Amino acid sequence: MQIEFVELEFDTGEEEIDIIDITSHIQNAVKDRGNGFVNIFVQGSTGGVTAMEYEDGLKYDLRRMFGEIIPREMDYRHNSTWGDENGHSHLRASLLKPSLTVPFRDGKLLLGIWQQIVVLDFDNKKRKRKVIVQIVEERVEK
Amino acid sequence: MQIEFVELEFDTGEEEIDIIDITSHIQNAVKDRGNGFVNIFVQGSTGGVTAMEYEDGLKYDLRRMFGEIIPREMDYRHNSTWGDENGHSHLRASLLKPSLTVPFRDGKLLLGIWQQIVVLDFDNKKRKRKVIVQIVEERVEK
Amino acid sequence: MQIEFVELEFDTGEEEIDIIDITSHIQNAVKDRGNGFVNIFVQGSTGGVTAMEYEDGLKYDLRRMFGEIIPREMDYRHNSTWGDENGHSHLRASLLKPSLTVPFRDGKLLLGIWQQIVVLDFDNKKRKRKVIVQIVEERVEK
Repeated sequence: MQIEFVELEFDTGEEEIDIIDITSHIQNAVKDRGNGFVNIFVQGSTGGVTAMEYEDGLKYDLRRMFGEIIPREMDYRHNSTWGDENGHSHLRASLLKPSLTVPFRDGKLLLGIWQQIVVLDFDNKKRKRKVIVQIVEERVEK
Repeated sequence: MQIEFVELEFDTGEEEIDIIDITSHIQNAVKDRGNGFVNIFVQGSTGGVTAMEYEDGLKYDLRRMFGEIIPREMDYRHNSTWGDENGHSHLRASLLKPSLTVPFRDGKLLLGIWQQIVVLDFDNKKRKRKVIVQIVEERVEK
Repeated sequence: MQIEFVELEFDTGEEEIDIIDITSHIQNAVKDRGNGFVNIFVQGSTGGVTAMEYEDGLKYDLRRMFGEIIPREMDYRHNSTWGDENGHSHLRASLLKPSLTVPFRDGKLLLGIWQQIVVLDFDNKKRKRKVIVQIVEERVEK
């Protein structure tokens, strides 16, 4: 078995929830390989990773969904601990979680046609967001 | 290390949320193996995977929970993009996520007694749902 | 590749949601290793695992969040099936899910500075909670 690391880094905006499609980065990283899987891990406690159909209407719906389940305007104790205003960002990230595992075969991610891998940045500040992509490949002895 | 693939395919119904217990399929696939883990990945952007006690009362409760957190009857932009009616299905799937990793030892899944692995199909149409089960096994040199 | 198991066991309290920081246990288990990843799997259908900034204010906020998304006081069918009172515990666990995968490199977990790995026990009874930590390490031939 062989493990390789690819690090992705993004500058996120100030908008409430950034949704970044990383599918092509990951497909590119596995395209000359055989069989295995990819672990995607978002560093930092205000980011997460999942899959979705990456489409403008649904991106709007997903942002609204998080806004309804975990509203921004509440009296979060985390906000008074640090004097910042991102308690809701942390909670959304903990609920979505920072890891996702996606299989590939013959150098191709086994995603559905309308299924893209997306990183969500929930923080309300501009920041650098780092994503660790770990590629685990079976090595067949020849 | 050795990686093997098992593909499961299900015909889902028209009901709001199908809940399919796949534990015995997976236990069967690892029973003659040593140590390792199983990655379960649901293909398609309207399905997810998790664990639960597979029991009729709780299945009812889980369906109602998703109906309350992410209601069917809302004005989702995704619905106007495609003219279909499954914006809520996509959101539920993105929140639950398509991957789960379960360890096994001496050919036995390390689940709790009341803990089953379930695939959820959130789509409101009959469809085929494909699940990729990737079995990763340690190979001890002899 | 080499797979090792570490089992963690905790006595949980009667409070609504126990939040247990297991980061140092896991960092300790990988510190003399090279590259790989850790699968954390919570046995039992009323527990889950995620990452968060382990801080008192946020712990309070996280407990309140689950209480709002999936309230304790509802008429869950699971409760009438078994005569117990933990339908909400099961639903919270199924939504959060029992597995998380975290990469490490040169013996160091690739977490963010404010990102801790936490196990959540949602059950309303005192119990033993078992967590399976599976360490998967690349073995470079020498």
